[in-house]
Amino acid sequence: MMDFGEQTIIASNESKGIVNAVRDVFDGKKMETNPTKELLNLSIGDPTFFGNLPVHQVMKEAVKEAVDSDNFNGYGPAHGLLCARQTVAKHYTTPEAPLTDDDIIITCGCSGALDSCFTVLGEPGQNILVPVPVYPLDSCVAASRGLTIKCYQLSPDRQWEADVDKMDQLIDKDTVAIVVVNPSNPCGSVYSKQHLLDILAVAEKHSLPIIADEIYNDLVYKGQHSYPIATLSKNVPILSCGGIGKKYLVPGWRVGWILIHDRHDRFKKEVVPSLIKVSRKSLGITTLVQAALPKILDTVPKSYYENTMSLVEANANIAYGELSVVGGLTPVMPSGALYMMVGVELSKFPHINTTVEFMEKLMAEESVFILCGECFLSPGFIRLVLLMPSEKMKESCHRIREFSYRHYEV
Amino acid sequence: MMDFGEQTIIASNESKGIVNAVRDVFDGKKMETNPTKELLNLSIGDPTFFGNLPVHQVMKEAVKEAVDSDNFNGYGPAHGLLCARQTVAKHYTTPEAPLTDDDIIITCGCSGALDSCFTVLGEPGQNILVPVPVYPLDSCVAASRGLTIKCYQLSPDRQWEADVDKMDQLIDKDTVAIVVVNPSNPCGSVYSKQHLLDILAVAEKHSLPIIADEIYNDLVYKGQHSYPIATLSKNVPILSCGGIGKKYLVPGWRVGWILIHDRHDRFKKEVVPSLIKVSRKSLGITTLVQAALPKILDTVPKSYYENTMSLVEANANIAYGELSVVGGLTPVMPSGALYMMVGVELSKFPHINTTVEFMEKLMAEESVFILCGECFLSPGFIRLVLLMPSEKMKESCHRIREFSYRHYEV
Repeated sequence: MMDFGEQTIIASNESKGIVNAVRDVFDGKKMETNPTKELLNLSIGDPTFFGNLPVHQVMKEAVKEAVDSDNFNGYGPAHGLLCARQTVAKHYTTPEAPLTDDDIIITCGCSGALDSCFTVLGEPGQNILVPVPVYPLDSCVAASRGLTIKCYQLSPDRQWEADVDKMDQLIDKDTVAIVVVNPSNPCGSVYSKQHLLDILAVAEKHSLPIIADEIYNDLVYKGQHSYPIATLSKNVPILSCGGIGKKYLVPGWRVGWILIHDRHDRFKKEVVPSLIKVSRKSLGITTLVQAALPKILDTVPKSYYENTMSLVEANANIAYGELSVVGGLTPVMPSGALYMMVGVELSKFPHINTTVEFMEKLMAEESVFILCGECFLSPGFIRLVLLMPSEKMKESCHRIREFSYRHYEV
Repeated sequence: MMDFGEQTIIASNESKGIVNAVRDVFDGKKMETNPTKELLNLSIGDPTFFGNLPVHQVMKEAVKEAVDSDNFNGYGPAHGLLCARQTVAKHYTTPEAPLTDDDIIITCGCSGALDSCFTVLGEPGQNILVPVPVYPLDSCVAASRGLTIKCYQLSPDRQWEADVDKMDQLIDKDTVAIVVVNPSNPCGSVYSKQHLLDILAVAEKHSLPIIADEIYNDLVYKGQHSYPIATLSKNVPILSCGGIGKKYLVPGWRVGWILIHDRHDRFKKEVVPSLIKVSRKSLGITTLVQAALPKILDTVPKSYYENTMSLVEANANIAYGELSVVGGLTPVMPSGALYMMVGVELSKFPHINTTVEFMEKLMAEESVFILCGECFLSPGFIRLVLLMPSEKMKESCHRIREFSYRHYEV
């Protein structure tokens, strides 16, 4: 008999490979705050966090009606209730990129959608193109699949557009897809139609599918427009990931989806059946929230998320105004999503060596919690979430300004 | 430029490997019914299917309260809300196998729990012991992970107990765990304390962890008792998978869990962190149903699921009585869960070559829908679900009897 007490049971490489960059930065760290100052948290992209953005009454009624109906207690199809898939198809179909319920997979949030897409398209050892600054879940899911990420850099000088020539050069025979995040977390950028066409041309040249993270679609500032990338191509097969978490302010409800834009039947034979198979492993998400989807998408008015975006835009203007005059800081004005990136010229802060340290010292001295760019594989930046009440946003920016003045040296 | 229109995009082996035995049997088949007879469906293990087992009012209130509270719209911890983990720990802790909230992972149903356990414990190329008749999801999840299943046969002559000597011989250096399903789907068997101790001795001898599928724990016939396997060992590390789907009649709500019974800190270093990491890929399940868990587990009385089991036991008695007198059929009397297996002596039915054909012909002639043993890697058996109203159960058995008489030849 073996010495039972001494052996550690080993976990699989796949599970150990799930490393979230945000966690990496924080692992083992205990961030000190300044006990004399109220904590102002600009780190978490959860619109429910401050309580200033209440959930629409209709949405709550929709779930309660599903509960009372007694029609949604049993198993649904693993890839989603028909009524949920139908309503998503109805609301996201366009003449340029038509959808039927057969083109929809309901997932556990947009994260679950991305996980499924990566699982189906990528074989361990292959690679996938992701934008940097990166949405941490993308690198995390890729790593757990044994997929190498090839990073294409977004440029703050060009509203975070990609250099498509460099993107083109990154592609090799083992590349399985291009990930496009638009509007962008963490950048808050919204691509122009032309830029999306340029990316599509690269995909088409290499005969590659696109995984589009479009959870922030429609969440743009006044006068801006976000184009679903599938509406701009007839040839590139696209898996567009979305959900109600951000737009409808309920990330905890975990309702996401994949819109399958197949072209020339390239997804039909293997990818679509495999997406459905992947859903069978956990037999789908809670039927109660799926059943609420038709009423939510049909009834909640546009003004609901426009209201969110008014706050975000107002906060962006506050932050831009307050921080663009600060030596060593370069805020990049966003056009959508819930975030703003601010460049930090570390050479001007001689006692701060990295943006991790900037984050820690800002927290220790000012109790302002932002995320450092290292979380997004982008040292030299910090990310602000623009969801707090504007008074608090002002206060946060004042403190960041005071902090920066104090540490700035020419 | 490549000829974009002609290429199929290939799906990963992992996703293509997700093969559900039930689907395998049915793929491409269109089962004909007898249009003159009402369809009687004894194939689906969903307690909500017939509408005869209503969901407890308290459970519906619990979800609606969570909705109205507005406290559960945001992200929760990926491995489960603290209140959910606390209540599961409180209800499943025993003096022999104590649990705290740190020992609980909330998952997307029991299926999600099993998927996580297989993902964390198994590396592609290794192997895992599973019982046969097999619960199809186990073989499906193993295959998708590239894990070989080594089947240990359960014997209908010994109330579906395993031959532990043979189990012992199956284990090699690449074996990562033993899966134990008790009470059993599809067999309806409930292991004795001694049999569980015998299995534990094998695990202990080889220093292997056990993955216990205990979703049917407590769902036993009058006078029977199901022992959670963790309560019978101080040494074997056990991941016990469960959930509210079957016991509380809401499989569509997708609330499951893993109870982590670590022993000698063997799970502490790698397995527990990896289970949490796996949960981070999809950021957890709907917070609304998690938030309802405390009220559900605290308030719904034992009589609720005892009522279900009275129906199941009554149906088992009907089926056993009706079918044990039929030549060529050998029902095996269950003691728990929701199922009964019936042996089919195919040599007595000269025009029926397999139990797949038995299933198809029974459907075509009698509109009675059962699953063939092939779905559980056990040809020569059929499985009945014992959840329908007893009148319908009688009618179903009458039709199976008529069918068998008609095809029986000595």
